[in-house]
Amino acid sequence: MMPLSKNKIKYIRSIDQKKTRKEERVFLAEGPKLVGDLLPHFHCKLIAATSEWWQENAQVKADEKAVATPEELSRASLLKTPQQVLALFEQPADEWSANCLKGSLALALDDVQDPGNLGTIIRLADWFGIEHIFCSLNTVDVYSPKTIQATMGGIARVKVHYTDLQELIGSLTDVPVFGTFLDGANMYEEPLEQHGLIVMGNEGKGISREIEALITHKLYIPNYPLERETSESLNVAIATAVVCAEFRRQAAWK
Amino acid sequence: MMPLSKNKIKYIRSIDQKKTRKEERVFLAEGPKLVGDLLPHFHCKLIAATSEWWQENAQVKADEKAVATPEELSRASLLKTPQQVLALFEQPADEWSANCLKGSLALALDDVQDPGNLGTIIRLADWFGIEHIFCSLNTVDVYSPKTIQATMGGIARVKVHYTDLQELIGSLTDVPVFGTFLDGANMYEEPLEQHGLIVMGNEGKGISREIEALITHKLYIPNYPLERETSESLNVAIATAVVCAEFRRQAAWK
Repeated sequence: MMPLSKNKIKYIRSIDQKKTRKEERVFLAEGPKLVGDLLPHFHCKLIAATSEWWQENAQVKADEKAVATPEELSRASLLKTPQQVLALFEQPADEWSANCLKGSLALALDDVQDPGNLGTIIRLADWFGIEHIFCSLNTVDVYSPKTIQATMGGIARVKVHYTDLQELIGSLTDVPVFGTFLDGANMYEEPLEQHGLIVMGNEGKGISREIEALITHKLYIPNYPLERETSESLNVAIATAVVCAEFRRQAAWK
Repeated sequence: MMPLSKNKIKYIRSIDQKKTRKEERVFLAEGPKLVGDLLPHFHCKLIAATSEWWQENAQVKADEKAVATPEELSRASLLKTPQQVLALFEQPADEWSANCLKGSLALALDDVQDPGNLGTIIRLADWFGIEHIFCSLNTVDVYSPKTIQATMGGIARVKVHYTDLQELIGSLTDVPVFGTFLDGANMYEEPLEQHGLIVMGNEGKGISREIEALITHKLYIPNYPLERETSESLNVAIATAVVCAEFRRQAAWK
């Protein structure tokens, strides 16, 4: 097995740049659990791992296999706590049609900016059985290493698509489009249909005006106690989770 | 008004170190919104801001006031996108008694390690009207700059206490202690009392065995669809939010 060269280390680190990821059409995943979860789902271009990891995973398939010392791995790693294995996978083609929205619940993200938030949303979508996430063109790159790590493997099952959200939503007929707003209807008092699109907005600005105009069901996540004057809000991943949980509760336990 | 000296910039940056924060008993907050939200609640030791910010906030009280160029602020800042103001506040004394647990709902965090997760939990506790969070002694420092930024001001209202959780929970009588487990009872089918302690565990290991033995109500957050085989889990802040939302839903809309 080949050793991990200095050039290869440099190449791995360059995948932190969106431009390089786009050109190379790869993404980075680190750690035995995550790499193991992704191997059956994505074409693996490169694995760099310690000889201990290789001893237990000799059968694993990848275009290139490299053995590395912990020091070399920590030079290649983008994590604070480097792991004994990291891998580069090929980005799958982004194939979808509006049919992905037929009869099931999907998410739409209107300019979510934080890679950790996007990864956490992918992870929770996986938990709540949501297969498709539509991202506006300004949403952070799903293949950012921080996003991939935060999905905890959810990226293997949840499909993430980039598209002009305004155009997509504008083209829909008979599909409920949900969004959360301070002046929306209390989601606990609304019968929530189990199909349609749940739109979540940017961390600072929320849902844009253009998209807001296309929302058919404005919902509100009540805070507590109700009479309290608040200036607070919820983090976008937290709000997404609380809304998805309520949709699924109504489906199964109402 | 004094300019922001090189030594002061170095001092501000040193607050990223837990050791220094502990010795100095201060914490850092950045950005006009967050600094503005915290000023009425904490004693302010230092504000460094652009002359533009000072023009609109001349009346603000702080032990030291410094005017700085955007370049100087970006040297002092721990953020990727430095803001026009940052401030050092005094850490309040950690005063609490088991009475904080009487008749209301509180959170307990068993070794939560990620500063962003802790900050997000404080923010959502604020939203759901939870005033006290008890942290195990190995939980990440609440005064980490990343935590403070993620609270989005929630730190002004939510009180965070560090203590030996095992000892605290062991000393409680007639207080329900909740925790989420894969073999817990479906939380949507359990009547949830509106007082007691909700324990959330470490990102990797969950709730420790010692604490698990003290849980009186094991709950489960159902995934969807129910019959699905899953190896997934939820991020700890996400799980906290979904559980707190369900407690409050049952209080107000059941």
